[in-house]
Amino acid sequence: MVVDNLVPENISDFLQVATPVAWLEEAGERLPELLLDHANCELKAASSALGIVYRYPERDKLVWRMSRLAREELRHFEQVRQLLADRNIAYARLSASRYAGTLHECVRREEPLRLLDTLIVGALIEARSCERFAALIPRLPDDIARFYRGLLASEARHFEQYLGFAREECDVSEADLSARIDELRALENGIVCEPDTLFRFHSGVPGATNG
Amino acid sequence: MVVDNLVPENISDFLQVATPVAWLEEAGERLPELLLDHANCELKAASSALGIVYRYPERDKLVWRMSRLAREELRHFEQVRQLLADRNIAYARLSASRYAGTLHECVRREEPLRLLDTLIVGALIEARSCERFAALIPRLPDDIARFYRGLLASEARHFEQYLGFAREECDVSEADLSARIDELRALENGIVCEPDTLFRFHSGVPGATNG
Repeated sequence: MVVDNLVPENISDFLQVATPVAWLEEAGERLPELLLDHANCELKAASSALGIVYRYPERDKLVWRMSRLAREELRHFEQVRQLLADRNIAYARLSASRYAGTLHECVRREEPLRLLDTLIVGALIEARSCERFAALIPRLPDDIARFYRGLLASEARHFEQYLGFAREECDVSEADLSARIDELRALENGIVCEPDTLFRFHSGVPGATNG
Repeated sequence: MVVDNLVPENISDFLQVATPVAWLEEAGERLPELLLDHANCELKAASSALGIVYRYPERDKLVWRMSRLAREELRHFEQVRQLLADRNIAYARLSASRYAGTLHECVRREEPLRLLDTLIVGALIEARSCERFAALIPRLPDDIARFYRGLLASEARHFEQYLGFAREECDVSEADLSARIDELRALENGIVCEPDTLFRFHSGVPGATNG
């Protein structure tokens, strides 16, 4: 199936669980909310990268990469806003899905565990975004599908960068890294596979009260 | 004098008061702190622009411009970090000067006055940065002088953009705009002309306890 082929193998290996088809079907019918929430996600991704710059200013390589990443996310934010403008979809505030908030709540407070968890959460979010862009492409209008195809490579690269920094910056053994990825991934997989009351870019299976 | 000629006329007209020579002399001798604080300023300028994006998401033109501006400030942040790295100046946390904090404290809370004040403060900070870059150029090593010369045009453009949005987005009469600029400028002029206990990019006249 074309859908599966578009997801980079390292991403599907890392995530282990694919986006449920029920979410993809819902997304195909709720383009305005998908794009509005996607714009929010790009903005929040930029803020998260800047948060790392503020928190770890002495880590030169990390700061440099996160600043560049924030610029790239802002560029995507502007591009999604343009897609909204092209469709005359007026900006509307959408409440956040529970996805990123739930993951960030599990970030431990003491360093260097805080940095480690922040980077693993970053990797998970980028990987899931990449997987959803790939799975959505066959269901979207041409211009959005073309844009999402372009985002695939960036998100896959960001995923690798977050994971690389988790390995390089946190003085963690491969076994401990792997164990923590397992814990946070189990949480992530739960969110995308369980029923959800909201439809958002990172929401779970559309539920009965979805409005 | 060369120093005066480098300051764009619209900037010196707007600010009314030039940076005191005592600050310029101090800056020429405290390059590490100047660059470290300058890096912080670029990062904070990016955050301020993003703050406007978050607060006024429905103002399309403003959002688009502030997102681009944040990207530009981050690029400058990366460039200043590179100048620090070229000199083997290790990153160090510096406390903030009272400049931006004092100005932001005067931003009124109710809308649209909050947006108006935020934009005027933005214009003042960009104008002062531009004026200081221009005045510093003759006192700096070649590579930094060259970089600062490149920043002049950006800061002057950002100043005009902030002022333009104050005019366009806030439904304010020219007389009210002008009166509020007078108030905030008087505060700004005070900060840069009064003795200061810290040396920073936007600090006042170096004082006796300056350490």
